[in-house]
Amino acid sequence: MNGRAQAPIAVVLLSGGLDSMVCAALAREQGFGVLTLTIDYNQRHRVELEAARRIAEELQAVRHLILPLDLTGFGGSALTAAIDVPKGGVEEGIPVTYVPARNTIFLSLALGCAEAAGARDMFIGVNALDYSGYPDCRPAFVEQFERLANLATKAGVEGDAFRIHAPLLHMTKAQIAREAERLGLDAGISWSCYDPAPGALHCGLCDACRLRSKGFEEAGLSDPTRYASR
Amino acid sequence: MNGRAQAPIAVVLLSGGLDSMVCAALAREQGFGVLTLTIDYNQRHRVELEAARRIAEELQAVRHLILPLDLTGFGGSALTAAIDVPKGGVEEGIPVTYVPARNTIFLSLALGCAEAAGARDMFIGVNALDYSGYPDCRPAFVEQFERLANLATKAGVEGDAFRIHAPLLHMTKAQIAREAERLGLDAGISWSCYDPAPGALHCGLCDACRLRSKGFEEAGLSDPTRYASR
Repeated sequence: MNGRAQAPIAVVLLSGGLDSMVCAALAREQGFGVLTLTIDYNQRHRVELEAARRIAEELQAVRHLILPLDLTGFGGSALTAAIDVPKGGVEEGIPVTYVPARNTIFLSLALGCAEAAGARDMFIGVNALDYSGYPDCRPAFVEQFERLANLATKAGVEGDAFRIHAPLLHMTKAQIAREAERLGLDAGISWSCYDPAPGALHCGLCDACRLRSKGFEEAGLSDPTRYASR
Repeated sequence: MNGRAQAPIAVVLLSGGLDSMVCAALAREQGFGVLTLTIDYNQRHRVELEAARRIAEELQAVRHLILPLDLTGFGGSALTAAIDVPKGGVEEGIPVTYVPARNTIFLSLALGCAEAAGARDMFIGVNALDYSGYPDCRPAFVEQFERLANLATKAGVEGDAFRIHAPLLHMTKAQIAREAERLGLDAGISWSCYDPAPGALHCGLCDACRLRSKGFEEAGLSDPTRYASR
């Protein structure tokens, strides 16, 4: 016994984007050992998976789990099907890049992973301010999922409650960029673009690129991202 | 135009067991075209998958989708890990065959599948009477999931609500066996056993076999199942 308590584990959904990187680093800052869970859902932007691996390494994750889940059979989204990713700018309403029930599916998997690992904390980097208009990024969704988690599981039913942390929920992209800076993260290793250009460049035109770039600009920080168009 | 309206589609979670077979047949009886969704989660009892395929065929499913999802990396259940399936009889409490968050994960996938397919109805064969004590088989869980579905999705947010149907929720196993009979189903093609014996026999001793056998017995029906031990 060396007197050092083992850090509690938190399962962090890590896509490889800037938001989930900052979210994972905040989990670590709060004293959790992070178990990073990356879902390989056959997304168009597969370079994300390599970004997730590098981020997990940088953050000394206790475990990095990549779960293959092929959602292409469902169809219905520009991120998994043969539909063009829009490049004209962030519009009102729910965009075609919406993946049906994605965050519900991902949080369910995080919940299964957490319960099996004996963890009670889950982190998800959703953000309801500078976001793409996805319904499963809103505070009400996150709260409802936490209630479900505690009805759905052995641990929850036995009174050992699960907590869903969404520390970026009320941050702007500029605040997220500043958090990355404050936490000493290399934002350049994260990946946001939905439709990578040749040479593993961010396209610069999809919603995710526009929001990312705007974040660094409004924060007054230099943007380490290499964009194909800007 | 031949005047025949196209049947609305319902996504039915089909494990290949007796309960999900009856559930799918009830969806058909209610006038739905059934899209059967089977999750291949690397379960020990893989003969279930073949049963699901046969059931989908018998019920003339409009589509049968098998989604591979390898949960063995999570560990924590006798159904996916190297833990013995108990054979001593159905006990109080939540058993080791519980798969962490299984029905939450499965309903999330059904929700994504339904939204992508333009379906608003989902069927799940959970049952809160003669069941194994899993928390995610209770009415409160099903209701909570429906609330979540309508916060989590584009369709739900736009007021085009999803409905979760759990028609077996308040049935005993005997009632389910009688429903199979009434619906003209061949219960012999369904698969319940958690730990198949050589020759694709039901073991006869695990919780699922005991509940199945008890159902036919209490219904006064002959049990078409071939058990290794009885």
